[in-house]
Amino acid sequence: MIKVAIVGYGNIGKAAHEAISASKDFSLEYIVDTTKIDVDVPVLNDVSELNNVDVAILSLPSRVVPEVASLLLSKGINTVDSYDMHSSIADVRSKLDQVAKQNNSASITAAGWDPGSDSVIRTLLMAMMPRGITYTNFGPGMSMGHTVAVKAIPGVKDALSITVPTGSGVHRRMVYVELMDNADFNVVESAIRQDDYFINDETHVTKVESIDDLRDVGHGVNLIRKGMSGTTPNQKVEFNMSINNPALTGQILVSSARAVMKQRAGCYTMIQIPPIDYLDDDVDEIIRSLV
Amino acid sequence: MIKVAIVGYGNIGKAAHEAISASKDFSLEYIVDTTKIDVDVPVLNDVSELNNVDVAILSLPSRVVPEVASLLLSKGINTVDSYDMHSSIADVRSKLDQVAKQNNSASITAAGWDPGSDSVIRTLLMAMMPRGITYTNFGPGMSMGHTVAVKAIPGVKDALSITVPTGSGVHRRMVYVELMDNADFNVVESAIRQDDYFINDETHVTKVESIDDLRDVGHGVNLIRKGMSGTTPNQKVEFNMSINNPALTGQILVSSARAVMKQRAGCYTMIQIPPIDYLDDDVDEIIRSLV
Repeated sequence: MIKVAIVGYGNIGKAAHEAISASKDFSLEYIVDTTKIDVDVPVLNDVSELNNVDVAILSLPSRVVPEVASLLLSKGINTVDSYDMHSSIADVRSKLDQVAKQNNSASITAAGWDPGSDSVIRTLLMAMMPRGITYTNFGPGMSMGHTVAVKAIPGVKDALSITVPTGSGVHRRMVYVELMDNADFNVVESAIRQDDYFINDETHVTKVESIDDLRDVGHGVNLIRKGMSGTTPNQKVEFNMSINNPALTGQILVSSARAVMKQRAGCYTMIQIPPIDYLDDDVDEIIRSLV
Repeated sequence: MIKVAIVGYGNIGKAAHEAISASKDFSLEYIVDTTKIDVDVPVLNDVSELNNVDVAILSLPSRVVPEVASLLLSKGINTVDSYDMHSSIADVRSKLDQVAKQNNSASITAAGWDPGSDSVIRTLLMAMMPRGITYTNFGPGMSMGHTVAVKAIPGVKDALSITVPTGSGVHRRMVYVELMDNADFNVVESAIRQDDYFINDETHVTKVESIDDLRDVGHGVNLIRKGMSGTTPNQKVEFNMSINNPALTGQILVSSARAVMKQRAGCYTMIQIPPIDYLDDDVDEIIRSLV
């Protein structure tokens, strides 16, 4: 049994808890969360108290992931996270790789569906068609990372960021905010537009009375590549998903928690992991059923 | 530069040649083929003459792959092949794994699009939705493996096997045969139906005057999985391809020839290979562009 802890008990942490319950090879030892939660496992207030687990699932806002992952890896605890700020992933991986190697621990970072399983698809498509163009179209659906980023902005009581695909990998961000009593909408709107998560996209910010009425965790992806295999053009591949967003992220984190136990010391993205390592079965059995 | 040889110069061997020409990190040293071919590299008559290459791409009928791969691996030459008899892949891999480990060489077997890249997709989908059902629907299109199997039957001058999807992963095989002068159609038809490639599928055998008029190397896949992530049902993923069959197989063999150079001694299927290994670039660069 793999002894696992969940660090952070929001949407993703809860989904990871469900995915662990549905697996046979994990034993959930602790949940780390600062809020009062009603669960049937010991709850710790701080990651510094975490010991005696093989792997920690970091279901935390991306911005705190690198620091928490470093702390745990330096204690020899493996980590998985779904850090999702695409432009920083290479740097975060490189830094965590050093910490992990120094402390004989292992980590899989950016393990969600994008970055994550979509990254694996994009890599595989490059191997199949080295020349060509890939477009990843998201949504319509709620972006967890963007929503969390908006919620962190001063004056925001609650928020929701919907990603709308406008084709060719271009997206519109529809941001809905419920403001605190004294907040100035223009200040909040400006802060959202200037945030790294939004600065490159067409962003619309709308003030609403209640976010609850808008909430829907469904999401989707349409990933297409048209390119050349060798010297042959017009090879076309399309990958479509219609999914419950936190459920899929939680499941991929749990599958990655299994995979990280099989890696040598270091930090990896999902494109660096043999896909078979996510599964809990004998190698020959898996080959017989899936290859 | 990776020194490579192509063993077998049919449709797939020619496509592999094109894919090598379109890559920067390979040097094609030899082609091994028993027929007279017009190419600008040295041609050897037999694999036993092959030396001084890093990796051999085996573009041969599946049934001769295990023996040729064993021979080369035992000489310390890495191999890649697209062995496609699904029910025997686990055993073939296991046997080649022993030979490779004893001789400090490495091999990727069943490296095509199915088995191959589709296998990677199916494995990834299992990590995303551990419970559920996957259907792989092929075609309509010409199956290389099935066509080669028919051509090997006595009395067959030329042949073509078309795979037609009838849904839910069930297929019909439409086999077209051009007979030798003295051949008995009923004997040929019976031999085709009893072949491992056809025995489990609805198979129609038709005698035609000329196979050439029917030839088309386009193919397709529709791979779907509906299942559960954690305890959440109704997660849906669909993967579609429309491709030139030999071109994609040749390209995947060449990408695998790159990947095999990065593996430790042993024989692997594609689900055991980190996807990043198929690509020729710096790790951080690949992460920046694809993750």
